[in-house]
Amino acid sequence: MSSLRPTIDFLLYDWLHADRLNERARFADHSRETFDAVLDTCERIAREKYAPFNRLVDTEEPRFDGEKVILPKATHDAHEAYVASGMLSAAQDYEEGGMQLPYTVEAAAGTFFATASVSIGGGLLTKGNANLLMVHGTELQKEVFARNEFGGRFSGTMALSEPQAGSSLSDIATRATPDGAGFEGDPLGPRYRLKGNKMWISAGEHELAENIVHLVLAKIPGPDGKLVPGTRGISLFIVPKKLVGTDGQLTGERNDVALAGLNHKLGWRGTTNTLLNFGEGKYPVRGGAGAIGYLVGKPGEGLRCMFHMMNEARIGIGLAATALGLAGYYASLDYAKNRPQGRPVGPAGKDASQPQVRIIEHADIKRMLLAQKSYCEGALALLLHCARLVDEQHTGTPGSAEEARLLLEVLTPVAKSWPSEFCLEANSLAIQVHGGYGYTRDFPVEQYWRDNRLNMIHEGTHGIQAADLLGRKVVMEGGKGLLLLAGRINATIERAIQQPHLAEHANALGQALQKVGAATKAAWATANPSDALANAVPYMQAFGHLVIAWTWLDVLLSVPAQPARPEDEGRQRAARYFFHYELPRIPAWLRVVETRDPTCATMPEEAF
Amino acid sequence: MSSLRPTIDFLLYDWLHADRLNERARFADHSRETFDAVLDTCERIAREKYAPFNRLVDTEEPRFDGEKVILPKATHDAHEAYVASGMLSAAQDYEEGGMQLPYTVEAAAGTFFATASVSIGGGLLTKGNANLLMVHGTELQKEVFARNEFGGRFSGTMALSEPQAGSSLSDIATRATPDGAGFEGDPLGPRYRLKGNKMWISAGEHELAENIVHLVLAKIPGPDGKLVPGTRGISLFIVPKKLVGTDGQLTGERNDVALAGLNHKLGWRGTTNTLLNFGEGKYPVRGGAGAIGYLVGKPGEGLRCMFHMMNEARIGIGLAATALGLAGYYASLDYAKNRPQGRPVGPAGKDASQPQVRIIEHADIKRMLLAQKSYCEGALALLLHCARLVDEQHTGTPGSAEEARLLLEVLTPVAKSWPSEFCLEANSLAIQVHGGYGYTRDFPVEQYWRDNRLNMIHEGTHGIQAADLLGRKVVMEGGKGLLLLAGRINATIERAIQQPHLAEHANALGQALQKVGAATKAAWATANPSDALANAVPYMQAFGHLVIAWTWLDVLLSVPAQPARPEDEGRQRAARYFFHYELPRIPAWLRVVETRDPTCATMPEEAF
Repeated sequence: MSSLRPTIDFLLYDWLHADRLNERARFADHSRETFDAVLDTCERIAREKYAPFNRLVDTEEPRFDGEKVILPKATHDAHEAYVASGMLSAAQDYEEGGMQLPYTVEAAAGTFFATASVSIGGGLLTKGNANLLMVHGTELQKEVFARNEFGGRFSGTMALSEPQAGSSLSDIATRATPDGAGFEGDPLGPRYRLKGNKMWISAGEHELAENIVHLVLAKIPGPDGKLVPGTRGISLFIVPKKLVGTDGQLTGERNDVALAGLNHKLGWRGTTNTLLNFGEGKYPVRGGAGAIGYLVGKPGEGLRCMFHMMNEARIGIGLAATALGLAGYYASLDYAKNRPQGRPVGPAGKDASQPQVRIIEHADIKRMLLAQKSYCEGALALLLHCARLVDEQHTGTPGSAEEARLLLEVLTPVAKSWPSEFCLEANSLAIQVHGGYGYTRDFPVEQYWRDNRLNMIHEGTHGIQAADLLGRKVVMEGGKGLLLLAGRINATIERAIQQPHLAEHANALGQALQKVGAATKAAWATANPSDALANAVPYMQAFGHLVIAWTWLDVLLSVPAQPARPEDEGRQRAARYFFHYELPRIPAWLRVVETRDPTCATMPEEAF
Repeated sequence: MSSLRPTIDFLLYDWLHADRLNERARFADHSRETFDAVLDTCERIAREKYAPFNRLVDTEEPRFDGEKVILPKATHDAHEAYVASGMLSAAQDYEEGGMQLPYTVEAAAGTFFATASVSIGGGLLTKGNANLLMVHGTELQKEVFARNEFGGRFSGTMALSEPQAGSSLSDIATRATPDGAGFEGDPLGPRYRLKGNKMWISAGEHELAENIVHLVLAKIPGPDGKLVPGTRGISLFIVPKKLVGTDGQLTGERNDVALAGLNHKLGWRGTTNTLLNFGEGKYPVRGGAGAIGYLVGKPGEGLRCMFHMMNEARIGIGLAATALGLAGYYASLDYAKNRPQGRPVGPAGKDASQPQVRIIEHADIKRMLLAQKSYCEGALALLLHCARLVDEQHTGTPGSAEEARLLLEVLTPVAKSWPSEFCLEANSLAIQVHGGYGYTRDFPVEQYWRDNRLNMIHEGTHGIQAADLLGRKVVMEGGKGLLLLAGRINATIERAIQQPHLAEHANALGQALQKVGAATKAAWATANPSDALANAVPYMQAFGHLVIAWTWLDVLLSVPAQPARPEDEGRQRAARYFFHYELPRIPAWLRVVETRDPTCATMPEEAF
């Protein structure tokens, strides 16, 4: 029976050899046993506290009673179980109360929650927020804010976007001005007053924790009172919902952060998504105007601090998309094994005198299931590989850490965007396998599809990821990242080509790599970004297919040529599906990249 | 400003020359003026009675109070306005109270309703039901049932599927047994008693009309009391919700048709979708057991009667999918023209000191808008062409009518499936253009996307359409239909190739045609349906892209080479988008067809 755990075990241990991470000093006390214990716990909590309530959090959306945001009891229970599991601080140092868990294992464990109920959430934002403070905060900021987040007393947000500035952070208009004489001397950090509106803030208001720590991007006006244009002027602030003393206890004062509205979404409804007003006077505090915030790092370095966390946040989105894809795959596989309908087409057509068969016996149903398996397990492998690179970056030798950093630069846009697009397609296939039943709310697949549609939008849209990939990542540092990736892909090809059963795939991958390389050059042939980037999304789609094909081929190197176990046969089939049905799509995407096709970019507005 | 009416006018008159239909005797009294009057009326009703209530019918789902199905008042008002417009009977003969409107114009007019609110509905089922009775019913059946449907007193359903038999009609288990001695003498038709459950019945219960005329497929047991396996045993029955006298008046007796449940769907929520119990004893009638039904046509010919209406029903689904795609296109175009965000990428990158631009100025937004335009206007052209073929079939010379019939056989699976898939993709792009706002229920695009997901499922799933196309339509009558289509495509190519600005497209289309032809042969090379049909869906996707490319090239023959009007420039661009970005996808789909790739079909169940 196909399910998530054996797939994760195979990828973690048979493929990535995560158990060998204990050769690193940081992970020396770990072993497969300790990793398995973490996976067991997360799997159990997800099964008991998340999965049974996935539909409930969809139908009982967060609502505001004027005072508080009301969430279902199930959300409170799930949050409590998650906090109790220790996963919020699992990756932290022992002396921080953590267990020095590798990110690879943390990421793998997170998929259980996302598969069970993506929108109840697994502390991703709180961890990202606290991790950022551990790197860029002062000792007291770590003590008062980060450690209370890891402990689950406080929860965290990332407050970047504004209603008039979604993807375009350089246009944020939230102002931060020094909070009176001596503002610099506040033990919690230079104290400012913030005024502005923040949009799309997940978990921006709720009662799950004692306090909410908002990490807010804002601009400090220059001496002329004007905001600096562009991203240079952006600084980062801690703005707690309720003020906190240096002892970490609430002072009893409400900060001037007010819920201006809840967003009512297509899916992902278990997570509160908010429009927040900072400093608009709803909760005047300490006799001044504006919400009180404490500077993190230096003025003007806000985006640099924030982007520090971006790789892991984007890997997190890719994992969420993948987990939803897998949830749909398992649901439709189960349905297909149990639903009788129709008869197989034999050499002589169909024989109506025979009993109906289960739909998994039909070739087209198998095609839709295998496509889902190929997309989602391929995506999962890529994401766990990326997580392993994060660990390498943090614990490898200087040389291998640097290579891991470079590879992550290039792979992260793919790790975020590819699952968002193709695991969504997998969810659509899961609906299709169910037929009319899949279109009803009596089955879970329509919700997975709705939930997954968010992932191409948040944490940098598809367009943003593509511009990042083609505009920056494959050309940065003289193309070093792309070269390194090509080297890794060639290494896989060289190993695979020696095995007769993999030679065809290896050759196909080599050709795809050559094509993507050539297209990258052709896109930049005029050295004009507006030529190169006009077709950045088709480029990213082709690039993503190359990366997933490479991932599958590399996975097959850990599978016997003549598999004895059905799951290994399944891996070979899923890879073959990808090489036969998906990889041949690359030329169509690259055609417009290579020719810098201007059909779209030069379309006159009035001709639409 | 892009909107539906000018596009329809162009396609109907400049391209299809629908105004020349008045050269046919049946349409002699018509003219562009009478057609325009119909379009004006439908456009106005759609704008006033449909569009403003599209969100309302999504949020106020049909509910059952134990007695009646409650629908919003807006649905009643829209239905009333639709009936008053005369569109239910517009295509009928003058002596039937109709206006002998060509189907081409009726189909075009229908898109206004579907764009405004697809799920309030435009009488498609009632018309299909009554049309069927006009062909296969007795004089009294026409008088009592069909004419009251055309007049709007009664509404109609098609009751085919059963819970255990969705796509597999040969497995229906609803039984029809003669209703006592003299059952054959009933003036309304041989009278039977029906028992069984019907699933997915749209408009199966409501209070919009005085009565509901169910057209029900059921099996008459043989002398041994057993049902004949397969589709041979299926007969067709009129089963009115309330019994009707020969004078067309209700007798006051409720027939034994009971609502067993409402389906709660992902979208398309304005339409009631039901599970109905026939003859289970909730409303015992005339002292017998079973719902009373009147045979239509001969026993065993039920499917033949039903399939008579299938082409138009499938064209109707294609039009609904297209209309939803267009609705999303217009909404996202409007948003893109008004939303400021970010700056264009120039040769020197971005300049943050410049003000933000409207997002329609970004190349990637233009790409997403042009893709929508290319998909949806291409689909609309194909569907109106199919509608024109329906008119040709009914009013052309014997030779051209026969050709139209053959072409429709081949084109109908594409006309149904292609828009269902690619106009859904258009809706996803419409969400993406909106960014985070598109994911909220404050904007209409998420609903279009949900509504459109139904179209790949109902009226024959994607898999069913693909098996029909590759398994039957392209090989039937010795491949005559495919040959005829190839001839039409070649005729377009020959005209286009003489125009320098179209020569590149014409050559690309020629190659695509050649590839699809070769793949068709290769698929059937073993003459084994299970080999050929294993990849029927990728075949249909390639075939569909061929047909849409042909349609676009043919449309361009009606556009000046150097367009003076922006809308003609837009058509050239949308076509170019299709030829540059979409047509090159064909080889990837055909690769598995040509090789009869067995990767999916032979996948062992335990390997999933």
